[in-house]
Amino acid sequence: MTTLAVVGVTGAVGRTMVSLLGERGFPADRVRLIASARSAGTSLDTWLGEIEVEDLARVDPRGVDIALFSAGGDTSREHAARFVDAGAVVIDNSSAFRMEPEVPLVVVDVNDQAAGEHRGIIANPNCTTMTLMMAAAPLHETAGLVSMVATSYQSVSGSGQQGVTELLDQTEHFAGDVDSLMRGGWHEPGLTVYPRPIGFNVIPFAGDDAEAGYTSEELKLVHESRKILDLPDLAVEPTCVRVPTLVGHGVVATLRFERRVGADEAVSVLVSAPGVSLWKDRVPTPLDSAGTDEVLVGRVRETIGEPGGINLWAVGDNLRKGAALNAVQIAELLV
Amino acid sequence: MTTLAVVGVTGAVGRTMVSLLGERGFPADRVRLIASARSAGTSLDTWLGEIEVEDLARVDPRGVDIALFSAGGDTSREHAARFVDAGAVVIDNSSAFRMEPEVPLVVVDVNDQAAGEHRGIIANPNCTTMTLMMAAAPLHETAGLVSMVATSYQSVSGSGQQGVTELLDQTEHFAGDVDSLMRGGWHEPGLTVYPRPIGFNVIPFAGDDAEAGYTSEELKLVHESRKILDLPDLAVEPTCVRVPTLVGHGVVATLRFERRVGADEAVSVLVSAPGVSLWKDRVPTPLDSAGTDEVLVGRVRETIGEPGGINLWAVGDNLRKGAALNAVQIAELLV
Repeated sequence: MTTLAVVGVTGAVGRTMVSLLGERGFPADRVRLIASARSAGTSLDTWLGEIEVEDLARVDPRGVDIALFSAGGDTSREHAARFVDAGAVVIDNSSAFRMEPEVPLVVVDVNDQAAGEHRGIIANPNCTTMTLMMAAAPLHETAGLVSMVATSYQSVSGSGQQGVTELLDQTEHFAGDVDSLMRGGWHEPGLTVYPRPIGFNVIPFAGDDAEAGYTSEELKLVHESRKILDLPDLAVEPTCVRVPTLVGHGVVATLRFERRVGADEAVSVLVSAPGVSLWKDRVPTPLDSAGTDEVLVGRVRETIGEPGGINLWAVGDNLRKGAALNAVQIAELLV
Repeated sequence: MTTLAVVGVTGAVGRTMVSLLGERGFPADRVRLIASARSAGTSLDTWLGEIEVEDLARVDPRGVDIALFSAGGDTSREHAARFVDAGAVVIDNSSAFRMEPEVPLVVVDVNDQAAGEHRGIIANPNCTTMTLMMAAAPLHETAGLVSMVATSYQSVSGSGQQGVTELLDQTEHFAGDVDSLMRGGWHEPGLTVYPRPIGFNVIPFAGDDAEAGYTSEELKLVHESRKILDLPDLAVEPTCVRVPTLVGHGVVATLRFERRVGADEAVSVLVSAPGVSLWKDRVPTPLDSAGTDEVLVGRVRETIGEPGGINLWAVGDNLRKGAALNAVQIAELLV
């Protein structure tokens, strides 16, 4: 007799959570859909029938066993404790609690055991970090990870539906006069989500300016990777870049280990890693990752700059394994 | 009394060469426009008036002082020697001669002195390498470069007009049904230039499969960087990725030196580096680079993974500094 709540159910990740719960046959008797007052009173289709959306501000959390939160950090900070106090386990997709020492940060298939140590809240990692961890963790287990240089190719759906709209609008804006664009004679389109245009462009800046020239998104890659792998001294050199793709976050990573690792060994580890689909003959792209549960890994090769490491490419659906799927998988660990 | 020839004048780079020669007031008395038989007989506007295009197969190279070749490696291999034998200096934009020991590989403002040692042919480097060199070389001069991890964001115009057409066609193809795309239900568009779709996608593979899992484009980054900087042992870890941008090649680079270099020092070096425009407050993007002669550098910061190095982003117009402009600048060194 499990009662589930999905908080932030009208967002892209929240809606994906509901579909995934249904697809995977999650053993819940009841699901409660919760969002802000604006959406309250509307109804959504779920695998348990059509259900009315409740207003988060007025909701009574008693009886909820597991609450999946995906409504931003401020909402989690304001409301998660109420659910925990009422006896629920909160699985939080925001960054609000990820670095708190008593909150486990769990990538399912990487550090499942950490989920058991929760005190009411379990955090879901950042989407880019999650993709990278799926490829790096199995190799770490084999050879002891020492350092990573990671460079991302992040899609606009990582910024929600607004990011998708901004890319589509700007693409249309620029497609109308490609010749001028290519000579530098373009007109600034409307900017809402991103500080610079993203249509036919790349923005080597994701998140906010945080520390010593690094962004909040980049520091998540550093600190969350260390926590998930339980490697407080892991050297991580991050650069997070937004690219004009709709879905799928990719990462190029150069990994170094305590000992030399060759391409054949890395391939044999990754080919049997859970949740990973290793592509050998073709390169996996963000489009290939759309709608898939696995993280796709390709271009696994021994480093040529300083031999003995592994250079690879990993790409995952940022709305699924990067967010909703991992949260649902954590819930599955709990029941 | 200088006579110039532009070979491959009807391509994107060839046309840019002609505009740049005019813009910069190149001191030529005569310019000869040369292309394949298909384009011969047509006329093009130049700063010296309208000029008829000659057929490369039938052209008499006598009297040409400097020939700018941009018609692909096979054409250069077949025809460059004829021009050299007739007394011309060939500045070649293809990869045909770049790694030949007696051919200087010149990035103007980086290793101009090498141009003086030519024996008839001077090679123009690969566009991504060139962009990176403009930022890395001034720092190397200050602190001695030891290693680079470089990850690229290359635009489709690097594959010529066909690449531009493919991106625009596929963008239209996918924009018609974004909802299906985001769930993975997309239909493969026509593929001509690239092995996978590039519209709203990223292809972590550029060039051909070359050696030990690296591509031809990646090996250019390794070998050309070593030659340009005269550092045969430089460790270069390359990943070349095609992104859905029309113009402008970007590179994320993590650089390590013989001694510790801080962000302030790197900024002070780059702010006065010739041909470099250092952006401090905003991030430069591929769109910003379109139509500009400088390589734009931003996000200069000291590495946090293993402190003491520099992590930066550089982006340049691949048709200008990445190709046509550097070739014209080499020609300017010769006169």
